[in-house]
Amino acid sequence: MTKPIKRIAVCTGGGDAPGLNAVIQSVVIAANNLGWQCYGIRDGFNGIMFPERYPEGGVYRLTRDSVRGIGHLGGTILGTTNKGNPLHFPVKMPDGTVREIDRSDEILTYFGTHEIDALVSIGGDGSLTIADALHRKGLRVVGVPKTIDNDLDKTLTTFGFDTAVGFATECLDRLHSTAESHQRVMVVEVMGRYAGWIALHAGIAGNAHAILIPEIGFDIEKVAAKIRERDAGGHLYSIVVVAEGARPKDGHRELLAPAEVGHAERLGGIGETIAHDLGKLTGKDTRVVVLGHLLRGGSPTSFDRLAALRFGAAAVRGLDAGQTGVMVSLGVNGVDYVALEEVAGHIRDVPMDCDALQTGRDLGISFGD
Amino acid sequence: MTKPIKRIAVCTGGGDAPGLNAVIQSVVIAANNLGWQCYGIRDGFNGIMFPERYPEGGVYRLTRDSVRGIGHLGGTILGTTNKGNPLHFPVKMPDGTVREIDRSDEILTYFGTHEIDALVSIGGDGSLTIADALHRKGLRVVGVPKTIDNDLDKTLTTFGFDTAVGFATECLDRLHSTAESHQRVMVVEVMGRYAGWIALHAGIAGNAHAILIPEIGFDIEKVAAKIRERDAGGHLYSIVVVAEGARPKDGHRELLAPAEVGHAERLGGIGETIAHDLGKLTGKDTRVVVLGHLLRGGSPTSFDRLAALRFGAAAVRGLDAGQTGVMVSLGVNGVDYVALEEVAGHIRDVPMDCDALQTGRDLGISFGD
Amino acid sequence: MTKPIKRIAVCTGGGDAPGLNAVIQSVVIAANNLGWQCYGIRDGFNGIMFPERYPEGGVYRLTRDSVRGIGHLGGTILGTTNKGNPLHFPVKMPDGTVREIDRSDEILTYFGTHEIDALVSIGGDGSLTIADALHRKGLRVVGVPKTIDNDLDKTLTTFGFDTAVGFATECLDRLHSTAESHQRVMVVEVMGRYAGWIALHAGIAGNAHAILIPEIGFDIEKVAAKIRERDAGGHLYSIVVVAEGARPKDGHRELLAPAEVGHAERLGGIGETIAHDLGKLTGKDTRVVVLGHLLRGGSPTSFDRLAALRFGAAAVRGLDAGQTGVMVSLGVNGVDYVALEEVAGHIRDVPMDCDALQTGRDLGISFGD
Amino acid sequence: MTKPIKRIAVCTGGGDAPGLNAVIQSVVIAANNLGWQCYGIRDGFNGIMFPERYPEGGVYRLTRDSVRGIGHLGGTILGTTNKGNPLHFPVKMPDGTVREIDRSDEILTYFGTHEIDALVSIGGDGSLTIADALHRKGLRVVGVPKTIDNDLDKTLTTFGFDTAVGFATECLDRLHSTAESHQRVMVVEVMGRYAGWIALHAGIAGNAHAILIPEIGFDIEKVAAKIRERDAGGHLYSIVVVAEGARPKDGHRELLAPAEVGHAERLGGIGETIAHDLGKLTGKDTRVVVLGHLLRGGSPTSFDRLAALRFGAAAVRGLDAGQTGVMVSLGVNGVDYVALEEVAGHIRDVPMDCDALQTGRDLGISFGD
Repeated sequence: MTKPIKRIAVCTGGGDAPGLNAVIQSVVIAANNLGWQCYGIRDGFNGIMFPERYPEGGVYRLTRDSVRGIGHLGGTILGTTNKGNPLHFPVKMPDGTVREIDRSDEILTYFGTHEIDALVSIGGDGSLTIADALHRKGLRVVGVPKTIDNDLDKTLTTFGFDTAVGFATECLDRLHSTAESHQRVMVVEVMGRYAGWIALHAGIAGNAHAILIPEIGFDIEKVAAKIRERDAGGHLYSIVVVAEGARPKDGHRELLAPAEVGHAERLGGIGETIAHDLGKLTGKDTRVVVLGHLLRGGSPTSFDRLAALRFGAAAVRGLDAGQTGVMVSLGVNGVDYVALEEVAGHIRDVPMDCDALQTGRDLGISFGD
Repeated sequence: MTKPIKRIAVCTGGGDAPGLNAVIQSVVIAANNLGWQCYGIRDGFNGIMFPERYPEGGVYRLTRDSVRGIGHLGGTILGTTNKGNPLHFPVKMPDGTVREIDRSDEILTYFGTHEIDALVSIGGDGSLTIADALHRKGLRVVGVPKTIDNDLDKTLTTFGFDTAVGFATECLDRLHSTAESHQRVMVVEVMGRYAGWIALHAGIAGNAHAILIPEIGFDIEKVAAKIRERDAGGHLYSIVVVAEGARPKDGHRELLAPAEVGHAERLGGIGETIAHDLGKLTGKDTRVVVLGHLLRGGSPTSFDRLAALRFGAAAVRGLDAGQTGVMVSLGVNGVDYVALEEVAGHIRDVPMDCDALQTGRDLGISFGD
Repeated sequence: MTKPIKRIAVCTGGGDAPGLNAVIQSVVIAANNLGWQCYGIRDGFNGIMFPERYPEGGVYRLTRDSVRGIGHLGGTILGTTNKGNPLHFPVKMPDGTVREIDRSDEILTYFGTHEIDALVSIGGDGSLTIADALHRKGLRVVGVPKTIDNDLDKTLTTFGFDTAVGFATECLDRLHSTAESHQRVMVVEVMGRYAGWIALHAGIAGNAHAILIPEIGFDIEKVAAKIRERDAGGHLYSIVVVAEGARPKDGHRELLAPAEVGHAERLGGIGETIAHDLGKLTGKDTRVVVLGHLLRGGSPTSFDRLAALRFGAAAVRGLDAGQTGVMVSLGVNGVDYVALEEVAGHIRDVPMDCDALQTGRDLGISFGD
Repeated sequence: MTKPIKRIAVCTGGGDAPGLNAVIQSVVIAANNLGWQCYGIRDGFNGIMFPERYPEGGVYRLTRDSVRGIGHLGGTILGTTNKGNPLHFPVKMPDGTVREIDRSDEILTYFGTHEIDALVSIGGDGSLTIADALHRKGLRVVGVPKTIDNDLDKTLTTFGFDTAVGFATECLDRLHSTAESHQRVMVVEVMGRYAGWIALHAGIAGNAHAILIPEIGFDIEKVAAKIRERDAGGHLYSIVVVAEGARPKDGHRELLAPAEVGHAERLGGIGETIAHDLGKLTGKDTRVVVLGHLLRGGSPTSFDRLAALRFGAAAVRGLDAGQTGVMVSLGVNGVDYVALEEVAGHIRDVPMDCDALQTGRDLGISFGD
């Protein structure tokens, strides 16, 4: 039988997604209602690994008051980081080489010393892998999946994705009117390195004329043909949505150097290349808009807020029921707990028979194939 | 074997919901892409039953141009009606009594005369029952479910609900700040005669302190106790969300005359009663806000737009595959076609073990029980 | 020569308006940049008059950290009150009668004891009158005008008004689509007891068909005539915007009992009466929506945020330059300081020759006259 | 005495701005209410100069029905163009050189032949210069100023600017949370070639830490110092807003090749350069977001809708009163008509003593000087 829980910690890792604060809020309130104390770790696990950086405490008490009203704020009050995986922590050796060491014991020690009984770890693939390692070393851990790209295999509902799609759709709406007034081709690059869900959903909802996603290698000539077809019909503008991970069809031509694929953060990635090529192929005035960072921020939609609150409450409920080494999974109505080891590395990409894709085809949207 | 389709009609019935125009848009474009012509019937079936009211045509051709850009508009370009069910059409007799007649044959005749091969009927319970009757008389019909309350049993995804929840949540956000500044109790009445989904989802996402839904008979004393508990903790304001169909616990006390239950459209329904009672019980400054009509209008969220476009395309796809007498049902990824006769009268209310409800309880929200 | 300032206090009074927190934020940061300390008084002057109610302090230090990120929040972090004017404080006498006493000396004493050198008082007519009285008794005071109704005579720019008009316009947009789909008359009641600015601006921007404001006594028959005219032209729905202070033309007929005029906060004020009458006169399905409290809350628009930040900075700048007994007044580009004694009781109502009104008439909107 | 007007035409020129459709709507309805007919010219004057491009008519009748509901749409239903000034129309000569010819007589002839009595020309500096030329040749013309940058000297109120500032502020809000979570510097490039109004207003309202505008030559070292100062205070992220026309202080160092200044439309203009330099100078993770096109589109705010409706109605009122060769100018409450010849070439840039700028300085925002 497991020891009853008195204190838990919560942390957030990886790129941020709208709803992280609502998860934290939910964890804190639900834990409080069970009589537990709750602690926040700053910037992934940096609050534990680098206490010297946090004069006011790298781990701090979260009360109901600390989380009042944060549910509709973007970002994460705990901070996050993409660097410094404690399992493979890069250390510079005296000879100048870099070696990776495992610092997970420091984290376990911290939990032991401070009598923190369990961890809620909110993050993506990387963070959940770390969570799994900590669990295997004996820590009670429940993971909450975070994927703004909606590409996690083991949960139906996520948070952040709806907000990202909503804002991308609003941007497409804005671009329609100006593209039409000026008879332009607008290429809009959105997030999505491995899976094209944001491009697909926003592109259909926002009435794009072509959508390019990683799952479907595109033929730029076919996209140009779609634009020419619209022109011939008197519709002298077109909107092309591009996921950052979109790539040309194999063997067609070398549109991108391999190293460039997936550099979402850089201005002028695949979107700029495609805009350049479409301008050449169609002779039309062509512009590119990169939505990147704008999609990560912002107040979560009510859908994402509810999802995030459900995740947080379910994580606490899971811990209370003795779960560990699991990730909270949400279906349309129900909650499930999936072993963390089953989660890692399973990307859910857009299946070729999915209904949204079929809808796009029915509506005459080009997918470049 | 069925005759190939050349012409279809589309109509909308019942209360409007954000996304109706996107369904229409999708039906028209998908049908056009199959080479079909598409016709719109005005105001439910009134365009056929009362041609004299429509000097420019009660049924008119819908082209790609007629539906350009309508996907993000609220309402329905076809108009709708809650009156004049063609199956039970009320006629005043010479002796002053009212008799109901069945005018469905007029509709069938119209379709025959004008060589319209099939109907896409978008509507709620009432409209789908009419659709079923027309199907039984030989018309090829596919129904698209419309329920802003999210209370239809046979489909997982709907359109309009997300927009309604989103706007209700935004209103709750607005009321939080003014309620807190003035230390008031705010009672917010939302739609939901039979099912409390809007109240439940918006109430949790919008951080309400109590949520009253039709599925849980409430004890007003318990709601007042929640408000007093908050006051004692220094939180001198409270937000109470009430579905229009909420009702007090049986036998507790006669809060409402039976005739008053569910009169959503009247100003001062259950929300006003509850505000009055809470003001008396707590001694606090208490106000009521009725969101009613505001929730039906407005531009659909991107979620609802995508859902609506998927419904429309799936309806056309169904007709093309020979389906008739069915309603399009959407799950998270897939489409299904459910016999219309199975749909009628099945309300999906909030189950007592649903996760959103459990989340509310974990977060300490009072449900008045 | 005035003593240099080291400490100031800030308070908010009256009904809240979007932007109050941005004013507070601006006061605190601008004061800090001058090396001053800043203190917040809770709930108008209650933080000073009723210290026992505030175990954690009725007056508390506001640092940069306390105001980080509050600029886009509705409400006021200081709280506010409409009750308990310290100049006329109601006290129950032993014989049961109520006498008003002047408690302003307690406030002055507090400032003296705690070495707070000046006050920034943010509020409407009532609050600025109190500010003036405190100034006359020797306190250094700068007032910041707050009027969500835009009805203050001595400043061109206000904060809150733009947010209220924006949200009212969004609500009108939502109601258009549902009114049209259902062929209804929608009566929308908005704030505006003495001046009809919100109704006028939102009504024109939101394409209302009739706008009733306090400045123009209306003839309900003329409003009905407008609705009938629209019906005759095939536009079977109408939107009527009503300021809460709208009243029928003198002598026309007794539409309202005098006591009912201006009861903005009560559900079913003038809007419900007008809806009832229009329903009778036109025979149309007529509904009323009361926006009241929804207009006070919410995140300020960028216009209101900027205006609020300008007010706060200008108040601090004024104090620094030795101003006292004045209100900050903002024109389109410039700041002015107006003597507080000139402010009280000057309502700026809609002039009959104002351009917005003329625009409404050019567009064929009925003003009921 | 002037001939009474029976028919007018309206056209839109230059880059689009939210509110153009509301101006058109207002012109059409106000003209109709005077008994005039109204015609729209497509794509600036292209509808007249290139009739062959418009099989359905380069000039077409605008009725109340054509403009119903367009007031809240972005773009312009008439289309617009930045090319083909009829006064200096580029023609390729047989010898390959390009000569500019004056095609304004074709326009005058068109108006004469079709008995169109007057023109409402909506546009910026270029369009108003053309309008002035047509007026000098005898056409009755009233201009409506369009400047999303708010940089026109002769009118206080414009449309489009408020929408652009609002959306830019919303984007800054979104970037705050993600910048903070990831401890980044975000450089946000907004429109403003000659005047920094959008950057200034959005930057202050959106709590930017540095704002670079064309009117103040910046020292990149000072911007970097601001970022370092924030870091030292524990605020490990910064937001820098840059107008596209911002430029380094004279003589400081050659940040930009002269040819690059003001290339707003190109991805990677001044914003990217500044981001690159700040990354180097501060060692921080630095990203750039270019808002460009997103600011031109979108539904106008209620402020812009009202302003646009006022402009349109005032243009018609002006024509009705016999005005010609003038531009409508709007102050806070009143309308004025300014001679078109006085308008051209007067840019209103941000004055060094303007209150918004002073507010920014009071709040500690760096302007790079």
